[in-house]
Amino acid sequence: MTTRRTFIAAAAVGAASTAGAAAPVNSYPKLVHHVFFWLKNPESKEDLAKLLAGLRTLTKIETVRGAHFGVPASTEKRDVVDNSYSASEMLFFDDLAGQKVYQDHPIHKQFVADCSHLWQRVVVYDAIAA
Amino acid sequence: MTTRRTFIAAAAVGAASTAGAAAPVNSYPKLVHHVFFWLKNPESKEDLAKLLAGLRTLTKIETVRGAHFGVPASTEKRDVVDNSYSASEMLFFDDLAGQKVYQDHPIHKQFVADCSHLWQRVVVYDAIAA
Repeated sequence: MTTRRTFIAAAAVGAASTAGAAAPVNSYPKLVHHVFFWLKNPESKEDLAKLLAGLRTLTKIETVRGAHFGVPASTEKRDVVDNSYSASEMLFFDDLAGQKVYQDHPIHKQFVADCSHLWQRVVVYDAIAA
Repeated sequence: MTTRRTFIAAAAVGAASTAGAAAPVNSYPKLVHHVFFWLKNPESKEDLAKLLAGLRTLTKIETVRGAHFGVPASTEKRDVVDNSYSASEMLFFDDLAGQKVYQDHPIHKQFVADCSHLWQRVVVYDAIAA
C-alpha cells in the first residue's frame, strides 16, 4: 500500500542521512505497541501455533506500519530478563489514532474472539518515541 | 555504515514485495530486545532526560540494527496495559550473537555505570522472530 511504501522510503532516507554514524534512532513509526502473552498451556506447540497464526492476521489492519512476532529468545538468563511468556506481538503505529483504529478494528476483535481462550495473561506496553 | 545501509535496503525490498498486501511481518531484524525502566524519581524530568540521553549512546554499538526509545503513550487505560514505567528501550539485533556483543560492550557497561543509579527496576524481554 502506498502509505506503507512511503513509510519505508522515509525510514530509508533517515538511514541514509545517518549513514556512517550510529544506528538510526527513532526512525521507526513513533508508537510501538508490545504485547506479551502467557498461554494457559505453555507446553502446547499447537496452542502457540494457533496464537501466532492469529497474531499474523493483525497485520491486515491498515494502520499497522510494521510487525514483529516472536517467542522468548535464548539470551543469557539474568534476574531482570522475563522469558516466562509464550509469545510476543510488537506492532508499530504512526500515532495514537493509528493504535486506536487497530484496537477497535473488527480484525482485532476477531483475533480476541478466536484466541483469547488460549491465554491466561496478557501484558501490554505502549511507548511513544521520546 | 555499510551493514546498516544493507539492512535498511533489505527491509525496503521486503516492503516492496509485499506492497498491496498487509503490512510486512517480521521484516525487521530477528531479535527484538525491549527494556522497561522505572526511575527512582519518576517525577524528575531531569532524571528521565539523563536516562534517555544515556540510552541513545547505545546505538553506537555496531550490532544494533535499529532503535526506538520512548515513554508511556497515552493510549486507552486498560487492566492489561502497564504504563507505570518511565522509559522504554527497544533495540533490534540480527541474532543472539549481536545481542551478546551489545550486552558485553564497553558502551553498554558505561551506560549502566552512568545511569543505573537513576532506576529502581528494570524488566527485559528478548523475543526472536517466530
